Amino acid sequence: MIDGLGGLPDPATGKTELEMARTPNLDRLAAESICGLSEPVGAGIAPGSGPGHLALFGYDPIDSLVGRGILSALGVDFPMEPSDVAARINFATIDGEGRVTDRRAGRISTETNRRLVARLGGVQVAGLRVFLETESEHRAVAVFRAEGLSDQLGDTDPQQTGVLPHPIRATAPEAAATAALLNSWVAAARAALADEHPANMVLLRGFAKHPDLGTFEQRYRLKAAAVAVYPMYRGLARLVGMDVLQTGKSLADQFATVRKHWDAYSFFYVHLKAADAAGEDGDFARKVQVLEEADAELTALVALKPDCLVVTGDHATPALLKQHSWHSVPFLLRSQWEVPDEVASFGERACMRGCLGTFPAQAAMQMMLAGSLKLTKYGA
Amino acid sequence: MIDGLGGLPDPATGKTELEMARTPNLDRLAAESICGLSEPVGAGIAPGSGPGHLALFGYDPIDSLVGRGILSALGVDFPMEPSDVAARINFATIDGEGRVTDRRAGRISTETNRRLVARLGGVQVAGLRVFLETESEHRAVAVFRAEGLSDQLGDTDPQQTGVLPHPIRATAPEAAATAALLNSWVAAARAALADEHPANMVLLRGFAKHPDLGTFEQRYRLKAAAVAVYPMYRGLARLVGMDVLQTGKSLADQFATVRKHWDAYSFFYVHLKAADAAGEDGDFARKVQVLEEADAELTALVALKPDCLVVTGDHATPALLKQHSWHSVPFLLRSQWEVPDEVASFGERACMRGCLGTFPAQAAMQMMLAGSLKLTKYGA
Repeated sequence: MIDGLGGLPDPATGKTELEMARTPNLDRLAAESICGLSEPVGAGIAPGSGPGHLALFGYDPIDSLVGRGILSALGVDFPMEPSDVAARINFATIDGEGRVTDRRAGRISTETNRRLVARLGGVQVAGLRVFLETESEHRAVAVFRAEGLSDQLGDTDPQQTGVLPHPIRATAPEAAATAALLNSWVAAARAALADEHPANMVLLRGFAKHPDLGTFEQRYRLKAAAVAVYPMYRGLARLVGMDVLQTGKSLADQFATVRKHWDAYSFFYVHLKAADAAGEDGDFARKVQVLEEADAELTALVALKPDCLVVTGDHATPALLKQHSWHSVPFLLRSQWEVPDEVASFGERACMRGCLGTFPAQAAMQMMLAGSLKLTKYGA
Repeated sequence: MIDGLGGLPDPATGKTELEMARTPNLDRLAAESICGLSEPVGAGIAPGSGPGHLALFGYDPIDSLVGRGILSALGVDFPMEPSDVAARINFATIDGEGRVTDRRAGRISTETNRRLVARLGGVQVAGLRVFLETESEHRAVAVFRAEGLSDQLGDTDPQQTGVLPHPIRATAPEAAATAALLNSWVAAARAALADEHPANMVLLRGFAKHPDLGTFEQRYRLKAAAVAVYPMYRGLARLVGMDVLQTGKSLADQFATVRKHWDAYSFFYVHLKAADAAGEDGDFARKVQVLEEADAELTALVALKPDCLVVTGDHATPALLKQHSWHSVPFLLRSQWEVPDEVASFGERACMRGCLGTFPAQAAMQMMLAGSLKLTKYGA
């Protein structure tokens, strides 16, 4: 999983990052594979990392939408319990009348964030435990623990300035007590931050419990392992029941981890973050370089002779856009039980000519199960 | 319908059965046609003959899943009534304590099967008529007839050895009386086989009534005829309301049957079994030969000048896999009202480049109706 794999052509050369990169190993794999473009969610839809990953893992990216609070909690490796409710927090600035003047409190430093999180740790509300963790700058995550919490709650973040934060509203009758309890905490937090500047308020959004999506073991009878460095991807893997393996930071380390555990698992998810990061930074040349480095390392994975090997990304992150984009993502699947198409290099234009065409990412797992002869016949 | 048409490349040549076969007539047709790959059920899903055929006939292969008992009954040409319940039978071996030791009774001969079926014909249960027919080896089919039978019944086949067969369980409350009645028959059958070896028990699965799928006449206003040699395919055709024509065994005979009835029908389904059989046997060379012979015969069908002609298969049966596979199947559709694409030969790789791409088999009937100008405008 090369995060943010797809790109857009540099106007100077007419080539995308992947087309520009020298990738002899990926090209050879493409020649032995069936190829196409993987559409993560739907035409024109740029996915977040959650839907991008879950679709490739075979989950409906619409039905399985994971709340923002959960992704934040996963992102800091917080061990959530089924009854916990998580929310994303923004530190913000309010004026004397309580109106929001800056939804990000001037993007305070992560250090300040840590100090404020520690300070809020002292806020007490009877019957409620609150776990707070810093993400970065103005971003933090809260996990609420109490008996009988509901996550049917509206955001306090008004998404604009000049207005009061919303109270937490119950969006279902059974959430009324939860809303009252958490509003007490917000009031107490506001009081605790009253003498701070600029971060004198918290805005909460994306209240959510840990979803029960069903695990890889339950859905596919696969014993699955994740080899990912960044917490959010480790968390997404945990969400679908993968074992998250300890690994080093380089792709070479990650492939060494796969090799070490090769016999213990029937499925490996390996996540490479650097391509997405280069895309988000708008650094076309660095993304090309990351892809060339990944290509060189790939031989270590191919040498393990997987029954079925897929190389793709969870979404495109074109350096020209500096953000996730809606473009379908180059995809190759190699199995000895497929009819290789005529694609002989790995890139956006080459994969357009692949036999898979543009296909829903959600189909990838079924193709992998078939390509490793793990499915039985349907119907007599 | 060339059963099991699609294949996989022979590692020695890199060519599939169809790519290896000399098929000048199919190649000419492909050049005059729109081409693509037909996906029977979904990515990675290898279909049985039931879903493979029903999808091409335009029925949703998931919603229209036909129970195993029905396919067995169709396969022996049994004239089922709407209230009948069919089940597939395995002759099996049980030990002194009733535990299954061999689910197939050592694959007894078809002759032994016939003798046992005759013996079970003497088993009487008040209020129940039972029709038994030999399929082959350990396989037989039972059709149960009584007032108010339900098919909401669980299998007795435990799908493993070392355990007792299941009693027939009602999976819906209204099936309780049926379960009791059929359990009496199973007990009596067991008693009747007590002195047999190794086939001293029957295991039943796939209880099902004849489904009401709606006929070709109702769905498409087509008067449809089937020209198929093997019972199961004749049965599948009858299931969708086709007239099943008497025909000889060779493809030449089958096309002569089409010619004879040309004016009496608006749709012909012609089924060629030999390609699938060669694939199941793992006989690459014979499958190539079957395809070449089919190609030679095809001129007789083309000479009838159908408004719309489709050549495809219900699923792939690669000789390398010796079984039905999930691969999408080469497909061509010739009509004077289409824009031929640039595919000029009929094969897996060639059809990948066709204008239809990989498309759901279920769309084929709509394409055929359109290609013979039988559909009116949708919407004003």
